[in-house]
Amino acid sequence: MAENTVEVQRKFKTRSCGRYFRKFVKRRIPILEWLPKYNSEKFFNDAIAGVTVGLTVMPQGLAYATLAGLEPQYGLYSAFIGAMVYVIFGSCKDITIGPTALMAIMTHEYVQGRSPDFAVLLAFLTGCLQLLMACLHLGVLIDFISVPVTVGFTSATSVIIVASQLKGLLGLRITSVGFLDTLIKVFQNIYQISPWDTVMSFTCIIILLSFRKMKDIKLCSDQKKASTCQRILTKTIWMLSTARNAIIVIICSIIAYNLNTSESNNPFILTGKVRSGLPSFGSPPFSTHVNNRTIGFMEMCSELGTSILLVPIIGVLGNVAIAKAFANGGKIDATQELLTLGICNLLGSCASAMPVTGSFSRSAVNHASGVKTPMGGLYTGVLILLALSLLTPYFYFIPKASLAAVIICAVIYMIEYEVVKLMWKSSKKDLIPMFVTFLFCLIIGVEYGILLGVGTNLIFLLYPSARPSVHVDKCNTDSGAEYLLITPGNSLYFPAVDFIKQSVGDAGVKEGSSQLPVVVDCRYVLGADFTAAKGIATLIGEFNNRKQSLYFFNPRSDVVAVLKGACGEEFQYVSTQEELSYLLSTSQDKSSRQLLELSKGKSNESLLLTNLGVVHRNNRSSAHELSEVTTTLLHATAS
Amino acid sequence: MAENTVEVQRKFKTRSCGRYFRKFVKRRIPILEWLPKYNSEKFFNDAIAGVTVGLTVMPQGLAYATLAGLEPQYGLYSAFIGAMVYVIFGSCKDITIGPTALMAIMTHEYVQGRSPDFAVLLAFLTGCLQLLMACLHLGVLIDFISVPVTVGFTSATSVIIVASQLKGLLGLRITSVGFLDTLIKVFQNIYQISPWDTVMSFTCIIILLSFRKMKDIKLCSDQKKASTCQRILTKTIWMLSTARNAIIVIICSIIAYNLNTSESNNPFILTGKVRSGLPSFGSPPFSTHVNNRTIGFMEMCSELGTSILLVPIIGVLGNVAIAKAFANGGKIDATQELLTLGICNLLGSCASAMPVTGSFSRSAVNHASGVKTPMGGLYTGVLILLALSLLTPYFYFIPKASLAAVIICAVIYMIEYEVVKLMWKSSKKDLIPMFVTFLFCLIIGVEYGILLGVGTNLIFLLYPSARPSVHVDKCNTDSGAEYLLITPGNSLYFPAVDFIKQSVGDAGVKEGSSQLPVVVDCRYVLGADFTAAKGIATLIGEFNNRKQSLYFFNPRSDVVAVLKGACGEEFQYVSTQEELSYLLSTSQDKSSRQLLELSKGKSNESLLLTNLGVVHRNNRSSAHELSEVTTTLLHATAS
Repeated sequence: MAENTVEVQRKFKTRSCGRYFRKFVKRRIPILEWLPKYNSEKFFNDAIAGVTVGLTVMPQGLAYATLAGLEPQYGLYSAFIGAMVYVIFGSCKDITIGPTALMAIMTHEYVQGRSPDFAVLLAFLTGCLQLLMACLHLGVLIDFISVPVTVGFTSATSVIIVASQLKGLLGLRITSVGFLDTLIKVFQNIYQISPWDTVMSFTCIIILLSFRKMKDIKLCSDQKKASTCQRILTKTIWMLSTARNAIIVIICSIIAYNLNTSESNNPFILTGKVRSGLPSFGSPPFSTHVNNRTIGFMEMCSELGTSILLVPIIGVLGNVAIAKAFANGGKIDATQELLTLGICNLLGSCASAMPVTGSFSRSAVNHASGVKTPMGGLYTGVLILLALSLLTPYFYFIPKASLAAVIICAVIYMIEYEVVKLMWKSSKKDLIPMFVTFLFCLIIGVEYGILLGVGTNLIFLLYPSARPSVHVDKCNTDSGAEYLLITPGNSLYFPAVDFIKQSVGDAGVKEGSSQLPVVVDCRYVLGADFTAAKGIATLIGEFNNRKQSLYFFNPRSDVVAVLKGACGEEFQYVSTQEELSYLLSTSQDKSSRQLLELSKGKSNESLLLTNLGVVHRNNRSSAHELSEVTTTLLHATAS
Repeated sequence: MAENTVEVQRKFKTRSCGRYFRKFVKRRIPILEWLPKYNSEKFFNDAIAGVTVGLTVMPQGLAYATLAGLEPQYGLYSAFIGAMVYVIFGSCKDITIGPTALMAIMTHEYVQGRSPDFAVLLAFLTGCLQLLMACLHLGVLIDFISVPVTVGFTSATSVIIVASQLKGLLGLRITSVGFLDTLIKVFQNIYQISPWDTVMSFTCIIILLSFRKMKDIKLCSDQKKASTCQRILTKTIWMLSTARNAIIVIICSIIAYNLNTSESNNPFILTGKVRSGLPSFGSPPFSTHVNNRTIGFMEMCSELGTSILLVPIIGVLGNVAIAKAFANGGKIDATQELLTLGICNLLGSCASAMPVTGSFSRSAVNHASGVKTPMGGLYTGVLILLALSLLTPYFYFIPKASLAAVIICAVIYMIEYEVVKLMWKSSKKDLIPMFVTFLFCLIIGVEYGILLGVGTNLIFLLYPSARPSVHVDKCNTDSGAEYLLITPGNSLYFPAVDFIKQSVGDAGVKEGSSQLPVVVDCRYVLGADFTAAKGIATLIGEFNNRKQSLYFFNPRSDVVAVLKGACGEEFQYVSTQEELSYLLSTSQDKSSRQLLELSKGKSNESLLLTNLGVVHRNNRSSAHELSEVTTTLLHATAS
């Protein structure tokens, strides 16, 4: 019988362990969760979105590789591993991992004048650090990115991306760095606008926006009553609307191909030649050659310097900000995102990739193309592999204007103005971190914008810790004894100490209340630290010098432990209203301190009773225990 | 009669205005407070301390000027203005302002290969920024330096200063940068120790420490019963003990002078020649010449770069950390310190000074010499002016060994180990920021040490904001209705949102409680922001989808405003226990949501009564108002 129970318990334990393990595996490898539910409709959506993203990443990747100071094909090498790894580990369907402008700019500094191996090693180290952060569960850091910062970041990035696409949109052949520089250069070169590109891009934009609207058209209010013809039409419109980005890019490429008279004479600016061939797979480069000199691993690391820390953190911050933007209030598992990004960078570095992270513009394209699961990344990845090995000649003809149109139509819907109204209604203060993030992202760069936004937000968070509300009331006990009740509105941590100390001290010496006992209500004091305890010790000293009483009302036991540790026996507290009333009425006749000293000297029962439940109840904190002590003492007096 | 009252009121107002103004002036010009109480005893103490500090700052100033890449006399130019300005505006008697190693190192970067004018302009800009910070009352930033960080900083600086004096102590002729480098160089050159210097320094140390001890000797337990002889002896010992630093330096200089056989042949390492003459007074240099090229103000500023921000902030941080160390728990007026430092730097820049701040080692010497008021600075300042104009030949003979002994004996008492025990007893967690500050101050530098210590401390402060305690209890109302009571232990700010949301959500769907209504007790929710409101909106949506009720119990009115702004009418809250009981017993029979929808449709009095005081009391928050509504409705039903 007993053995049976043990057996059952063991089985149960094994089963619950197993369940926990399965749950953990599903959380860490999300594909196990959604793959069994995969169907043809999802496949269709994902394939269209994946191919559209693939067509978008192609010219972007080439551009970003150049931006990082690498040969163009490195952009494509960086694009396919991330996209495919995210299928297995990714938790947000919209995100596509790959080369981004931000990572490219951050890599550029360290590659410039050196070898591409530095970029690849940086990707490897970024991956390692991100995995380490995932293991240490540093995902908690991500909680410090608030909605206002996300909104500010998203809107600013949208504006930056629109600006960066202006030259493609207008067919300008200019190079620029950063948002303001791009705007200035575009306006300086406004007379060089190419009519062909401009006409194509604006036509594309109009078509894309109307296709997007078409999705919402319902031919018949009730789906069941619709005729077969109506149903087919609805389905076709839906398909056209979903595949609109891919269709536009393909049609534009065909137009450009047909208008091509010679290699250097096309009315449109084209994507141009992409060098074909897959990258070499192997371990990342732990040493490299620059100017006929071999540079070892340690020297490479020291040259990469702080970027080894900054690149992974900024990468993850950007990625999670994007994930939060698409999750729309849902929970983001930051540790999972860290893990995924880490694997993407680590495996990427084995295929000559530069550091990668989630791309905002392509994620927006992915979202706008109606992606349903992370599987879209697989089709993107396969397309890039195909492109690298076979399709490069065909991608030659993609007009940059059509890509600019696709990107702009995807991101303009990410500029959030509705939420500003809601924020105004709910909490106006939150508009400040939003505008700080937005403006600084535009002016000095996305990475600093996020950091400054988070910083501003932290100041708001820390302000109540430094300057809590302190209420002062003149109260009376039931027996008529007057006292000052002071209620600090926050915990006793170091930034608030001087302020609370001064507030309590000032209240204590105010005219007309200089002889009243002061009671500090610890209702909102959820914790205390050593600095606070030292400050309270000084305060108690000041009150003792003035022979004024200072009591703490109902502090939590952990707060008592901290305060007693630093203040010693001088720290006096009470736990119930009855004790307080009793104490205050006693202290009106005679200083309670004198009473205490008396009671310390003699062990007279009556004195013990007087002293009972009043002061120096060192480690007791419940009324229950107090009543026990009372009973014991009463017995002692009686016998 | 009425006019009389007005007159009295006006008089009272004028008087209280005047009092406020006088109080303000006294706070901002502390000398007005203490000068009237100045007496001969204080004068004697201050003069001895001031002269001792003056004798200490002389060789230190020369060394620090060299460290900053300037000619030696700049160190003395920087020393006297600060010391004298602090007499008028300073609020902490022990602090002496002047050149420090930290400021010298930070200046060095920008002076190197340029002109001394850069250092002077940096002092001017530092002063301006510190005054600006004082005007903006940014002294609040100083509250973020806790006791553990101060203790770590103080102890580390003491250790660093002791290490930096080792070469003077042992008579080594080496140059080193930083704590570790000094230690290594000293051990590498240990065989080059000069016996003369070593003997002198250790003799000095023994004498200084015993003189210090002698202060505590009481020849007679009762002062009144002492004989005249005893009284004179006591007074002499006290004087010797107080003036010990100055006496030692003077005696050692006399010894060195007498042992001087020729200019380059002295058994001791001496301070050496100091160029005499006062600096030129005038406006700071707004343009300069480097390599026959004139550099304008803007170009100088752009070359100084971020140091314009960093130098003033680090200067003030260091200064306040020192002030806190000496105030010993008392309050530091950070705004006043900012103001004083600003004036010191501003006026200093008119006398060719480099940026200055409080010096830890000299403040320790000042303290150990028994300074009583900030007046000590005046004597230091006068001594330096005398030194610059007249006394330079005599300072030539100060042996470095004697100065090293004075500095070491002053700072070893600043290494705090007693407080570590107290911290262990009170709050063990606080040991972490202390050790972080201590170690990083030693290893990577004082400025980073402070910043990292403050950062670690902020993480402890922010952690409860990100991961508050969440208590879940299964409760019953008086009528027997079961519900889940969830009490978050902190305010609803963005870092905690995901965590609280998940905690409440998890509690709601746990086995056996999936149909129970959930009540969130807002007792500790002192505030909320937009991110939290958005999260709560999502949570309410999830509960509505499950047809489970979610109520907020007794939220503060500002929290209600924020949450209602983002959640709209979906946000349901109650303010009293009675309402809650009523609501929960109703929702057991029928979903309260359905009830609501009903009540929205019809305006039946009975339904209104059912709905009364239960849900959607949009902007009312007191029980009083509720009862008013009840009364009105009951009247309406009756009529």
